[in-house]
Amino acid sequence: MSHRQTRRVVSAEALAQGVLAGNRLLMARAISRVEDGADDAHAILRALFAHTGRAHIIGVTGAPGTGKSSLVTVLAQRYRMAGLTVGIVAVDPTSPFTGGALLGDRVRMRTLSGDAGVFVRSMATRGSLGGLSKTTGDVVSVLDAAGFDRIIVETVGVGQAEVEIAGTAHTTLVVEAPGMGDEVQAIKAGILEIADILVVNKADRPGVDKTIGALQMMLDTGGAVARPLRHHGRLFQIEMPVATPEQILRWQVNVLKTVAANGEGVEEVRQQIEAHRTWLEESGESKGREQVRAAHVLETIIQAELERRMRANLSVARFHEMVEAIGRRAIDPYTAASELLAAI
Amino acid sequence: MSHRQTRRVVSAEALAQGVLAGNRLLMARAISRVEDGADDAHAILRALFAHTGRAHIIGVTGAPGTGKSSLVTVLAQRYRMAGLTVGIVAVDPTSPFTGGALLGDRVRMRTLSGDAGVFVRSMATRGSLGGLSKTTGDVVSVLDAAGFDRIIVETVGVGQAEVEIAGTAHTTLVVEAPGMGDEVQAIKAGILEIADILVVNKADRPGVDKTIGALQMMLDTGGAVARPLRHHGRLFQIEMPVATPEQILRWQVNVLKTVAANGEGVEEVRQQIEAHRTWLEESGESKGREQVRAAHVLETIIQAELERRMRANLSVARFHEMVEAIGRRAIDPYTAASELLAAI
Repeated sequence: MSHRQTRRVVSAEALAQGVLAGNRLLMARAISRVEDGADDAHAILRALFAHTGRAHIIGVTGAPGTGKSSLVTVLAQRYRMAGLTVGIVAVDPTSPFTGGALLGDRVRMRTLSGDAGVFVRSMATRGSLGGLSKTTGDVVSVLDAAGFDRIIVETVGVGQAEVEIAGTAHTTLVVEAPGMGDEVQAIKAGILEIADILVVNKADRPGVDKTIGALQMMLDTGGAVARPLRHHGRLFQIEMPVATPEQILRWQVNVLKTVAANGEGVEEVRQQIEAHRTWLEESGESKGREQVRAAHVLETIIQAELERRMRANLSVARFHEMVEAIGRRAIDPYTAASELLAAI
Repeated sequence: MSHRQTRRVVSAEALAQGVLAGNRLLMARAISRVEDGADDAHAILRALFAHTGRAHIIGVTGAPGTGKSSLVTVLAQRYRMAGLTVGIVAVDPTSPFTGGALLGDRVRMRTLSGDAGVFVRSMATRGSLGGLSKTTGDVVSVLDAAGFDRIIVETVGVGQAEVEIAGTAHTTLVVEAPGMGDEVQAIKAGILEIADILVVNKADRPGVDKTIGALQMMLDTGGAVARPLRHHGRLFQIEMPVATPEQILRWQVNVLKTVAANGEGVEEVRQQIEAHRTWLEESGESKGREQVRAAHVLETIIQAELERRMRANLSVARFHEMVEAIGRRAIDPYTAASELLAAI
């Protein structure tokens, strides 16, 4: 297909067919439409949906500065050596003021480009520093339908992203680096609950044993409890039933050391991911996690649609008037909210 | 007032009166009701609203491990020496699974306790790691009405919190520490847009000059642009008009060094905050920021109420059925969402 042809307006059906055929140009275009929330985004996703569910989705998260991007790059190379194809979705923090992505495709694009078995896509979080983009799950679905064997979703930051990624991925890696303070350790208590594999990257730095010791202690204290299969959304909260007795036996979270800069330890991480994948399937945990994923996707769609409807019903001019009145202390915010909502 | 008396059920009006009279027990109880979203929370806030708007609100944010809590503690002591009263609201990350606060009141409570001119309150983010709690603004309002001269709102994490705090505070401090990677520097580009004052804490550590140099360079590159007065919510986006030519001249963001552990440099930070406060008033910027704050509060209330209404109208059982169907690939999420929403 020539460059000229792909410049034409392509229908949702043609884009979906292109994705299924592995056409990279149409894939990139389908992702853009999905990401932009174009009119035909839902049609594309509907057409692709029956072809999803085959990829193993790997979430990689952790605090800034831990070297996640390098780790993901080397991990992708290792998967390629093992004969598997890899899609990478890197969720970048966006400036809330300019709307621009702050990191972009970085070094990774250069390292991995030219390999048809790898597809890299950077996504802006659009207005939220940290946190997954609303359409991250949809972009993952496009890559899943396109037939990539493994899809890596990378998020930056200590924040909402960690929680959301657990609802989006099959296997969640939390990346650490030596030299964290007490505050970070405390936050870890929350992050540990979502980690299937812990990676201490930059393991050639001083303090690595202390960091590993602290993480191991937290894991030991936590005990062998099954990770709760729970959807904890703003609108819906549901518990998924535990399917099998094997599922109650928790996956043993291990702490692995890597130096992504020279590739050290990354193959072990890859093997651990594959071991987790096998465990998910054999224990029946897989089914439960798939449902948590489905709940996450469904709630995201419902929220987006409800917000769209609300925006259509609420008056920005009236909101602005109320803001001014509150600023003058002429009305309190609760009374102002009631008046605005009375109009719906 | 005896302990026994305060154990009785106290009316919203009595609580509001107690807050205005500076009664610490009733203040704590009013805050709990507001934080818990009790039935009379709105009544309490309505009664207090006319008495708010006097405190100067200082947001302190930055990545984990930068020593924000120590800095806030010493800053509060400095304000006390200057004869001013201080309220502190520390927003702690919460485990999304257990719901518990991860940090608690920590050492600070011990250092500052016993001083009637200081009030410390830790708040859990309730379900979001990072990010402000929905009721943070309300708790600030209670402390404002109670007559505290300065209110410090401290948030942990690189994430949504940074953005939200800019809509909540009059003066925003972003705290750094030496030894950040490139990724952190990139994220800074977003955070710098909300900083009124930059503090490099732990300035006795190696690499401090490099960190200061990097921050200074980013500031110089950014140029002397006025901070946009903008409310950027999920439902509403509005621009506030710039009031005066002085406002267009941007406040000069300075990089200050501190070692909070021994108090070094904290008095200079305090003076810089006061200088910023004076600038806000003289430039007219103050009025615009107060409106951004009002917009933030109003949108938060409207969102909470809309979510409450939706939860009342949506069927969890039906949602669960759809989740199972999606898991079986029997229906795609977009069609499932349409069917669920058709019921409203």
